[in-house]
Amino acid sequence: MSKSNKLQEVRVFAPASVANVSCGFDVMGFALSGPGDEIVARRTDESGLRISKITGENGLLPTSVKKNTAGVAAQKLISNIGFEGGIELEIHKKMPLGSGLGSSAASSVGAVVAVNRLLGSPCEREKLLVFAAEGEKVACGTAHLDNVAPSLLGGFVFIRSQQPPDVTELECSKPLFATVVHPHIEINTEDTRKILRREIPMHKAVQQWGNVGGLVAGLLKGDYGLISRSLQDVIVEPIRSVLIPGFREVKQAAMDAGALGSGISGSGPSIFALSSSERTSQEAGKAMGEAFKAIGLENEIYQSRINEQGPKILQER
Amino acid sequence: MSKSNKLQEVRVFAPASVANVSCGFDVMGFALSGPGDEIVARRTDESGLRISKITGENGLLPTSVKKNTAGVAAQKLISNIGFEGGIELEIHKKMPLGSGLGSSAASSVGAVVAVNRLLGSPCEREKLLVFAAEGEKVACGTAHLDNVAPSLLGGFVFIRSQQPPDVTELECSKPLFATVVHPHIEINTEDTRKILRREIPMHKAVQQWGNVGGLVAGLLKGDYGLISRSLQDVIVEPIRSVLIPGFREVKQAAMDAGALGSGISGSGPSIFALSSSERTSQEAGKAMGEAFKAIGLENEIYQSRINEQGPKILQER
Repeated sequence: MSKSNKLQEVRVFAPASVANVSCGFDVMGFALSGPGDEIVARRTDESGLRISKITGENGLLPTSVKKNTAGVAAQKLISNIGFEGGIELEIHKKMPLGSGLGSSAASSVGAVVAVNRLLGSPCEREKLLVFAAEGEKVACGTAHLDNVAPSLLGGFVFIRSQQPPDVTELECSKPLFATVVHPHIEINTEDTRKILRREIPMHKAVQQWGNVGGLVAGLLKGDYGLISRSLQDVIVEPIRSVLIPGFREVKQAAMDAGALGSGISGSGPSIFALSSSERTSQEAGKAMGEAFKAIGLENEIYQSRINEQGPKILQER
Repeated sequence: MSKSNKLQEVRVFAPASVANVSCGFDVMGFALSGPGDEIVARRTDESGLRISKITGENGLLPTSVKKNTAGVAAQKLISNIGFEGGIELEIHKKMPLGSGLGSSAASSVGAVVAVNRLLGSPCEREKLLVFAAEGEKVACGTAHLDNVAPSLLGGFVFIRSQQPPDVTELECSKPLFATVVHPHIEINTEDTRKILRREIPMHKAVQQWGNVGGLVAGLLKGDYGLISRSLQDVIVEPIRSVLIPGFREVKQAAMDAGALGSGISGSGPSIFALSSSERTSQEAGKAMGEAFKAIGLENEIYQSRINEQGPKILQER
């Protein structure tokens, strides 16, 4: 292939995602239409990978390829393909870090999708999962897939096993609308994991896996009632929610507005709600935002249909 | 309605079932085509319910309506309907008690289906669940639904919650064949529950609910690979299997024959296997039976397609 046929630059949008989804701790997640990060991958004459620019998040993110989630993910892909030319990445953070919206996963996913496209799509999308997961490892310490998989594949995703990765898309035949409200406080993901109990009561575990199976069945069968009854977390939410001021009131506001369910997005502090109509979803968002404001917490409200598509190529040349 | 229009006698077959299904402890079960019990419900002139005959199982079962699972279940239904005439039940046990095949559930289900039909089907089939569950309570101490629900509804059933009952049918788009091998030893259901741990490690619980969700998704999506990978029980099987001589060898024999998965049927001692073809299912059964025989355990082998239909009216007049 002559150089002129090759893509020189690709700009990709990779979406935020909601991991855990109440009962589905470490095994479920879904993609939002927005917010998300934008990643540009561009060929350069100098060989090797580098990060040329990061915007957003006040320069908090490292520009070293080895320390940056997007850099690590892209490098894993490039090494796997055996590409020896030069690529530079621009990372445009368009969503908050530490919000519980899968910010690092979005950057990892955006990077591998952009680089893969730039290099002529040698990998199918599903194959990119392991590379994006390596990026996530830099941010979270472990290669959790519950944000990476939905951000990459779109829609609702079930992760039967993290290692080896075993990921299934859960197509819902009915429309579902997501609301996420992000209060302006920060929670460290590692801390939220440390406070969890290492042993849990058997009867609660059975309740939880009843809800997990119920949620999977509800989604695949398009059964709103079953989805709603299954959106309950008897294991993690009772513990983690104490770290989120106003959690109970915000969740109640979503339920009172008619949401199917509501819970912690990822490890928080954002709170999500799922609704069967756009209108309910908007009303839930308004009520949730007001509930946070009532205790003095500024917040952003994101509202969108579940993003079935995943990442999107915004521009290429 | 004149008396001549009314049914005088109904004979029903109610199937055996496999509860738990590896990962799905207390939340899953499926129905077999055979074995099963036959229940006859017949109008009598004498008012009230009585049990006129029990065949099979060497007269071990009580003929008192209040102590017999079928009697209790039928009585609950009759009281709910408000029927004041006379009915007698014949119970023909055609499957072993204490085998882990849902023997008491089959009798309860057969009784409510037969009586309901006899009385002109005042209840839809789903509505009979609570009455059959009351019968199960007499046998097991609690109204567990994981045998009653599949025996009544047929196919694979998911029980999100026992109390209140929340039951969903899991239609599998691909054919599935069941093998169950019943070794001639007895295990007390209550004992098998007592030996379970009351606290379990969180990471194993996550593995388990990953498998539960994977199995539900695999069934509904007709994905044999996912079904197979999900048929793993890291919580209950490691403990209960020690009560079943030869468990490991029998399970291995099923897997070597090409089964998708294998595990304890209910609380044992029967062992089930699921296969994607009838031939594999038969070969698995043969190998499993031989593995039990190798350690001196006589056994019966049941092999059938998953019973999608549930109970069957055999005769009515």
